[in-house]
Amino acid sequence: MKPSWTNIVRVAAITAFSLPWTLSSFAQDALPSWNETATKKNIVTFVERVTKQGSPDFVPPDERVATFDNDGTLWAEQPIYFQLAFALDRVKVLAPQHPEWNDKEPFASLLKGDLKGALAGGEAAIFEIVTVTHSGTTTDEFDKIVREWITTSRHPQTGKLFTEMVYQPMLELLAYLRGNGFKTFIVSGGGIDFMRVFADRVYGIPPEQIVGSSGKLAFELRDGRPVLMKLPTFNFNDDKTGKPVGVQMHIGRRPIAAFGNSDGDLQMLEWARGGGGVRFALIVHHTDAEREWAYDRTSSIGRLDKALDVAQAEGWTVVDMKNDWKTIFPFGSK
Amino acid sequence: MKPSWTNIVRVAAITAFSLPWTLSSFAQDALPSWNETATKKNIVTFVERVTKQGSPDFVPPDERVATFDNDGTLWAEQPIYFQLAFALDRVKVLAPQHPEWNDKEPFASLLKGDLKGALAGGEAAIFEIVTVTHSGTTTDEFDKIVREWITTSRHPQTGKLFTEMVYQPMLELLAYLRGNGFKTFIVSGGGIDFMRVFADRVYGIPPEQIVGSSGKLAFELRDGRPVLMKLPTFNFNDDKTGKPVGVQMHIGRRPIAAFGNSDGDLQMLEWARGGGGVRFALIVHHTDAEREWAYDRTSSIGRLDKALDVAQAEGWTVVDMKNDWKTIFPFGSK
Repeated sequence: MKPSWTNIVRVAAITAFSLPWTLSSFAQDALPSWNETATKKNIVTFVERVTKQGSPDFVPPDERVATFDNDGTLWAEQPIYFQLAFALDRVKVLAPQHPEWNDKEPFASLLKGDLKGALAGGEAAIFEIVTVTHSGTTTDEFDKIVREWITTSRHPQTGKLFTEMVYQPMLELLAYLRGNGFKTFIVSGGGIDFMRVFADRVYGIPPEQIVGSSGKLAFELRDGRPVLMKLPTFNFNDDKTGKPVGVQMHIGRRPIAAFGNSDGDLQMLEWARGGGGVRFALIVHHTDAEREWAYDRTSSIGRLDKALDVAQAEGWTVVDMKNDWKTIFPFGSK
Repeated sequence: MKPSWTNIVRVAAITAFSLPWTLSSFAQDALPSWNETATKKNIVTFVERVTKQGSPDFVPPDERVATFDNDGTLWAEQPIYFQLAFALDRVKVLAPQHPEWNDKEPFASLLKGDLKGALAGGEAAIFEIVTVTHSGTTTDEFDKIVREWITTSRHPQTGKLFTEMVYQPMLELLAYLRGNGFKTFIVSGGGIDFMRVFADRVYGIPPEQIVGSSGKLAFELRDGRPVLMKLPTFNFNDDKTGKPVGVQMHIGRRPIAAFGNSDGDLQMLEWARGGGGVRFALIVHHTDAEREWAYDRTSSIGRLDKALDVAQAEGWTVVDMKNDWKTIFPFGSK
């Protein structure tokens, strides 16, 4: 499941960081896509404080847990969540097996190419689309379906693979934290089985460090072989107050650093900050309409309103993408 | 949360095993509490096959996932599950706040010292006892309560701390697997928050590698500080067909080795074995009435009936505690 280059990158990172006399100079270069602003300084200062042996703020490596939202924090989420793009494509693939969809919303509009009409049903419509496209297969079959989609489908505006629409500065941040003994986790409202297909290859985050939303599973024997069936029954919503719950259920430790971009991440950041000791909370603010997208308080996707107020009131670190990031995507910008 | 000796043990293990030319000779000594029987040979042969570079059976370290049941596999479970002993003690502590329990079963019998009467209500009675004793606190408070109990309460027959009632051969096996690049997980019907309190210290398995049964949690602000409340609502039963589901939800990879002792572990072992390639399934059979306990097909605790048949039919490895284990507990035997 894991391409060997991931291992190579990891070994290289470990090797580089295990030489203490190079740490300080290397730290300057570990975030080359970040401009030399207060944001970058906040990150580096935090990491240096918790990793310095003998410091009162020192945190043992095992407790260096960092949690990251995915949509809008590690990869883009415009013009629609990428997992929803997958679900919409999947509806078209499944349509021949569902003639009843021709007369049933949200599928009827969707199959006519009327996305706006399909999504007019709001969250209930999206929920139904996600449910039918994320159930009825085994976990192994679903893995294969996502794997094929994610390696072939392209972003409607940039023409890039969705896995190329990741933020280069955040990739550097993940590697920088891991190089400093942190264990990095994704804690996202996205589907856990969906993200696991590419998170290891793209972010260096293995399946067991992914926390996400899920449907229920059932263990069955099929032709005498055990399978796990994905049921059309909702299990867990890893968003808003669900995020600290997901963190506890899955990780069982409070993060000392948490990273998000929307009101859906607020409680996870509060949970991380509430643990006592030196803690770090960072919000990615989408401010660059030219190189990426600019949106916050009134966006239906990745709304950042209350969390922005809290971040400002509590002195959390807020990334101004336009001014803090030298590069947006590995390929440049939109 | 983590005593530094755990780190020392880990570093020592890593150091020992990272010298390839000592590996083969060290492997002979890595399981000193195991007699030189076919069981030990099966274990060592499996590990050597999947770790040998260039072998067709080689498994990359990231995919070396091993899952262990806890009760009856890593520590004892007689005369009652240790977590139930915790719950019973906890009922007594909480009784003054619940005068209604004096007239309500199973609490009334329990508070009169009539354990048999209390448990006459079967699983429903146990479920009620576990629910009231594992809810109504924050996760941090529960952690503290378990921590105090587990470091002071003693086994009714041996007088030992419950964390001393662990199987020395299995501690060696955990270390041996980790030394060979395996990631070890607990996948138990026991409570996830209960096990996490001591599993790191006792087994070297960190909180994020514990999968267990759970109740629902709720994120709340208490005096402006975020807490996670343990609700009296059931969430997940990590037993029987729930075990492969728990494995998928939490780990997202199929184990290549799984270890259990009862019918509750059957599906987890089937799931591990069903993955293709070289896989290992092991059942601990409690056959030593003198040094531990002897029980299997008719026991109400840790019943081993169908799984024993499957193990024999499929050629899984079955530990005969009496003949395969030189030592039972770190302190010797019962």
